[in-house]
Amino acid sequence: MRILGIDCGSHVTGFGVIETEGRVRRAVDYGTIRAPVQGDLPERLRVVADGVDELLVRYRPEEVAVEDIFHMRNAKSAFVLGHVRGAVLLGVARAGLPVASYAPKEVKLSVVGHGSAGKAQVQQMVQALLGLREAVASLDASDALAVAYCHANLRAAGRRRN
Amino acid sequence: MRILGIDCGSHVTGFGVIETEGRVRRAVDYGTIRAPVQGDLPERLRVVADGVDELLVRYRPEEVAVEDIFHMRNAKSAFVLGHVRGAVLLGVARAGLPVASYAPKEVKLSVVGHGSAGKAQVQQMVQALLGLREAVASLDASDALAVAYCHANLRAAGRRRN
Repeated sequence: MRILGIDCGSHVTGFGVIETEGRVRRAVDYGTIRAPVQGDLPERLRVVADGVDELLVRYRPEEVAVEDIFHMRNAKSAFVLGHVRGAVLLGVARAGLPVASYAPKEVKLSVVGHGSAGKAQVQQMVQALLGLREAVASLDASDALAVAYCHANLRAAGRRRN
Repeated sequence: MRILGIDCGSHVTGFGVIETEGRVRRAVDYGTIRAPVQGDLPERLRVVADGVDELLVRYRPEEVAVEDIFHMRNAKSAFVLGHVRGAVLLGVARAGLPVASYAPKEVKLSVVGHGSAGKAQVQQMVQALLGLREAVASLDASDALAVAYCHANLRAAGRRRN
């Protein structure tokens, strides 16, 4: 089973592709999609959406997992982030793939073992759990691998979230 | 010059197509795109985005105008509305069309003459300004015509907003 994890961000969107076989999970690829800093919002959305479309074609994931956000204090940044996430989810929906959505706490719990872990801890555990030789340099890519890993575990346990 | 105005909403997205010729503005069509209430968010985004794509093909607007939101109190609803607006703006960007964005206050000022007008006042003025025989029943469609009208006026005055 191949899973694409996506960590949406206003400027940088991380992605991580993992392959699961029984209890084994390995990283296939990971990285970031960077929207042009100078571009206006529609153009930035186009770059992110085109990037996601490319990933769907290249890696042919069977399921997609993204982070949800329940507690966001700033309405303005929630609004902008919502645009990016909307453009990403649209691409996944058009590809006919199911999307599972997890709260940051659930992802941390699944990867680190407690829900209040920091990004650096997630990064270390992602490296260990996926047997990577090097740490994933981008925290956005590391978070994307983490949400894919979380989905692999929770769907295996029948606790998949939609 | 043909302008498509879009009023994005979490459940109902209004649209209004107007044609301008000098100082004359007339409504070509207006209505709403309704996302399935039962559908999950990616499916709802797909319905709205497909609806916008259809409008772009059917009416071939040269420019698109949407409302921006500067003051939104609730981060959760800003997040959801951001998703819809992101899916809409993506379609417009992929069609290669310019998008202008206006604050609700600017739209009301342009249509009613003051920035604190209510939706019913906007509805009345839209009917009068576009020479419609009947009032536009849907307030979402009326708001979409209003933002298209606002764009027609401000671009004519060289005060177009991006």
